Amino acid sequence: MYRDKIRVLDCTIRDGGLINDHDFDHRFVREVYKAISASGVDYMEIGYKNSKKIFSPKEFGSWKFCDDEDVKKIIDGIESETKISVMGDVGRMDMDDIKPASESPIDMIRTACYVKDIDKAIFMSNHFADKGYETTINIMAISRDQGPELEEALHQVEEECKINVLYIVDSFGALYQESVEHLVKTAKKILKTKEVGFHGHNHQQLAFGNTIEAIIHDANYLDGTVYGIGRAAGNCPLELLIGFLKNPKFDIRPILDLISKEFIPLRNKIEWGYIIPYAISGMMNEHPQAAMALRKSDKKEDYRKFYESLVGTDLD
Amino acid sequence: MYRDKIRVLDCTIRDGGLINDHDFDHRFVREVYKAISASGVDYMEIGYKNSKKIFSPKEFGSWKFCDDEDVKKIIDGIESETKISVMGDVGRMDMDDIKPASESPIDMIRTACYVKDIDKAIFMSNHFADKGYETTINIMAISRDQGPELEEALHQVEEECKINVLYIVDSFGALYQESVEHLVKTAKKILKTKEVGFHGHNHQQLAFGNTIEAIIHDANYLDGTVYGIGRAAGNCPLELLIGFLKNPKFDIRPILDLISKEFIPLRNKIEWGYIIPYAISGMMNEHPQAAMALRKSDKKEDYRKFYESLVGTDLD
Repeated sequence: MYRDKIRVLDCTIRDGGLINDHDFDHRFVREVYKAISASGVDYMEIGYKNSKKIFSPKEFGSWKFCDDEDVKKIIDGIESETKISVMGDVGRMDMDDIKPASESPIDMIRTACYVKDIDKAIFMSNHFADKGYETTINIMAISRDQGPELEEALHQVEEECKINVLYIVDSFGALYQESVEHLVKTAKKILKTKEVGFHGHNHQQLAFGNTIEAIIHDANYLDGTVYGIGRAAGNCPLELLIGFLKNPKFDIRPILDLISKEFIPLRNKIEWGYIIPYAISGMMNEHPQAAMALRKSDKKEDYRKFYESLVGTDLD
Repeated sequence: MYRDKIRVLDCTIRDGGLINDHDFDHRFVREVYKAISASGVDYMEIGYKNSKKIFSPKEFGSWKFCDDEDVKKIIDGIESETKISVMGDVGRMDMDDIKPASESPIDMIRTACYVKDIDKAIFMSNHFADKGYETTINIMAISRDQGPELEEALHQVEEECKINVLYIVDSFGALYQESVEHLVKTAKKILKTKEVGFHGHNHQQLAFGNTIEAIIHDANYLDGTVYGIGRAAGNCPLELLIGFLKNPKFDIRPILDLISKEFIPLRNKIEWGYIIPYAISGMMNEHPQAAMALRKSDKKEDYRKFYESLVGTDLD
């Protein structure tokens, strides 16, 4: 698949941070940035821009806050054309923390929200756009919101919002190809002046397949993570995406080295990937929270009981 | 997805046998058969029907040969509507070993071949059909054979062959959705009197996604294995397929129990799943043989060198 307009965003440190309280050390993050830069990937998302009034730096690592000074320590001295992205959650940011883009090492701010919070996300992303950043809105948990409220939100985005890209985010790893096709087509139809992006989760081993499906229907912004790291089952493996895309600007080899040297040892310390309770969450269109709690308990392999707990018994 | 004509075939023991020389003990195979039967899966493929003149029983376990007596030991005393399947490879069987179906515990024989061997496969499968078995031909490594030779083979099958099902087999885990769509549509167009099946390999995490793609385009026979076990990266996880299919005859819970009790411990002893050298083989449309050898060497995590060895240097 070659299409000049396709952009790949690596969110290894940002989504991977959800399984270690954003506590990757600077050496590790620099290794990731070096490899991402050498591989020709367009963006690297380095973490969240959360308010320190809401979250304590004592409890979380640097990539929960992404201070400009920390970002500079990562990128300084490394030759790169990869742009830096951070994510902001509706209700968890301090807008005054955001300097003008011209004074910041950050190039893009992605605002994450649920459909119900679209007004807040439009307000925030317009604010970032006015400060000179590339901007996106990432609509999370979209598998639960595929009806008229989503269409209304998309119309609002098209009419009121300055973002460059609207992302469809399958937070629960619940989408199958047919839903991805439906969602991307719906977004493309309404958003005549924006690009459409896709961020998959791998609970049912469909993150890569669904990303291909999104590409087929003209989504041009695609998320991946090295070795598929990310919350619960993780994300679309960046190495597979790079292997699929035929644009000669991409080089898979730095990513392969990075997996050999850094991610095989890391995977022995923290857990992500194809794990049955996450697969069950995906099938059930549920947040993986309960499955993540199960994996930390002594019942971590008691799949039937977990399945029964999600099926429930009360139908009303 | 609900379609009455869909049939699911579990090939856990057959494809899983490719990573342990078909040496699953009878207790384990009975546990699998119990769970597959309780889950409502239509077929269980228990192994290969190879000739003992070609392979020595000293070097391989029972499921390389599938003697009727061994099959009976597995199924005796277990209530089941699951039919038993075995696979035969062109050039590795002794046709005289095959009793009439009425005298055998085996219901279906699947003949595996490359496109170039289609004449032999037609001869063999007609012989099995004449003996009263349900029959299929499984065209292996089809990612290398998508052109006019395949179409010619499919026409021959339609005209000369008594099989019930023609399977598209992505042996190298190299197919993306668009190729699956093309292949299933081509097969459906030519094979007016046969069903079409799909057997995926998971080198690029696409076995389940490609199986869904095959279903969308009207393939009705679908292979899966418990916890995705199988050669190299393995196969389409049966539990995901059951979770996707909405036919109430299927019950995922016995499969979940089986994974908890048998497959989590087994995975600690033998290796399959998402492993980078297998992903590279899939991207390159190569047999995983070289990757499997790498995984047994002390260079098992040297991905870049392995990648370079497949890319090669001589272009002619």
